[in-house]
Amino acid sequence: MNGSHSSRKKPRKKIVGALLFPDFELLDIFGPLEMFGMLSDHFEIVMLAESAAPVASAQGPRSVVDRTFTDGTDIDILLLPGGQGTRREAGNPVMLQYLRDCYPQLAYLASICTGSGVLAAAGLLDGRRATSNQQSFAWASSCSSAVTWVARARWVTDGNIYTAGGVAAGIDMSLALIARILSEEVAVEVARYAEYDWHRDADWDPFAEQAGLL
Amino acid sequence: MNGSHSSRKKPRKKIVGALLFPDFELLDIFGPLEMFGMLSDHFEIVMLAESAAPVASAQGPRSVVDRTFTDGTDIDILLLPGGQGTRREAGNPVMLQYLRDCYPQLAYLASICTGSGVLAAAGLLDGRRATSNQQSFAWASSCSSAVTWVARARWVTDGNIYTAGGVAAGIDMSLALIARILSEEVAVEVARYAEYDWHRDADWDPFAEQAGLL
Repeated sequence: MNGSHSSRKKPRKKIVGALLFPDFELLDIFGPLEMFGMLSDHFEIVMLAESAAPVASAQGPRSVVDRTFTDGTDIDILLLPGGQGTRREAGNPVMLQYLRDCYPQLAYLASICTGSGVLAAAGLLDGRRATSNQQSFAWASSCSSAVTWVARARWVTDGNIYTAGGVAAGIDMSLALIARILSEEVAVEVARYAEYDWHRDADWDPFAEQAGLL
Repeated sequence: MNGSHSSRKKPRKKIVGALLFPDFELLDIFGPLEMFGMLSDHFEIVMLAESAAPVASAQGPRSVVDRTFTDGTDIDILLLPGGQGTRREAGNPVMLQYLRDCYPQLAYLASICTGSGVLAAAGLLDGRRATSNQQSFAWASSCSSAVTWVARARWVTDGNIYTAGGVAAGIDMSLALIARILSEEVAVEVARYAEYDWHRDADWDPFAEQAGLL
């Protein structure tokens, strides 16, 4: 998925920061990272966390941390997964302050699943439209009443903030973000290469009804 | 996704071994692990590799290793991802011998994407039907001529060996394996919880034609 060699000067790669915390949900973050990671000419992935120790997911597997919160913020696109750990992170002042400090320097901020509850707790979704995991919607929406919570959505875009529904919805959202940053054609090609059946309609969401939200 | 507490004696959890190697493909392994990991009453995930050092994926992010090849083999279900590193592993005698030693003790062996090329190189697919990543089909099928390679398939089952097509196909295959081990109802529930649009038909494969294989 990388272009041919060229003598023209290339623009700096965009840094995709994946923000980990204990009990993050595996597919929430590795689905999107597969999509961005396939475009290594354009994006560089950095695994971020509060501390330098490897971070255990809700499912068990542990990820190595590349940078901590004190290592500066040259992130272009910040991805915040969901998972059981969001219930703790929504009350973690260090995490919330990092998000507030980071956001003004970002090109895009994106959450997956209950990650939007943490963004809401940081105040970053106030006055905006957002969605979350359809099965944990009550918790996420309890994190801020100043957000217009959209129950039926695969993902929601409001300015440069993207919020996805549950788990696998992050893949669809990431492809939409890649389409915006690069092109629709590139996003289609990434989905094809990953043999992923991209749901390109942000309003496609059979899960909201199954979760009793409609 | 875990059942209620019970005083009845529970059966031992099945151990799902995820076999990592340098330049493995992220979603190949973390898609399936999300599905099995959601059922923590039934499955325990172990990250396996030849050496104890963290293993870097083709996309960059590194995973911590729980056990190496010398730590014994009480694995029930072995998952082998694809990725660029398969080209090296198909010629790595330590990896091939580990697979040969491990297989007779497994309940199920499953590969994703070009992982089937490594299984073929180990001789484990001889006389069987198998598939691989539709875009790297020529390479995978070159690893053994004693395999009946199926170009058009989301996944192929032959006895207790499962081989999936490219990347995201591993999620569909894993749900089919969960349906076989536990029940169709549980697999449907896992897909719903992950908000994943499960392709339940093993023959669903628009990617084979797009890759010019038909």
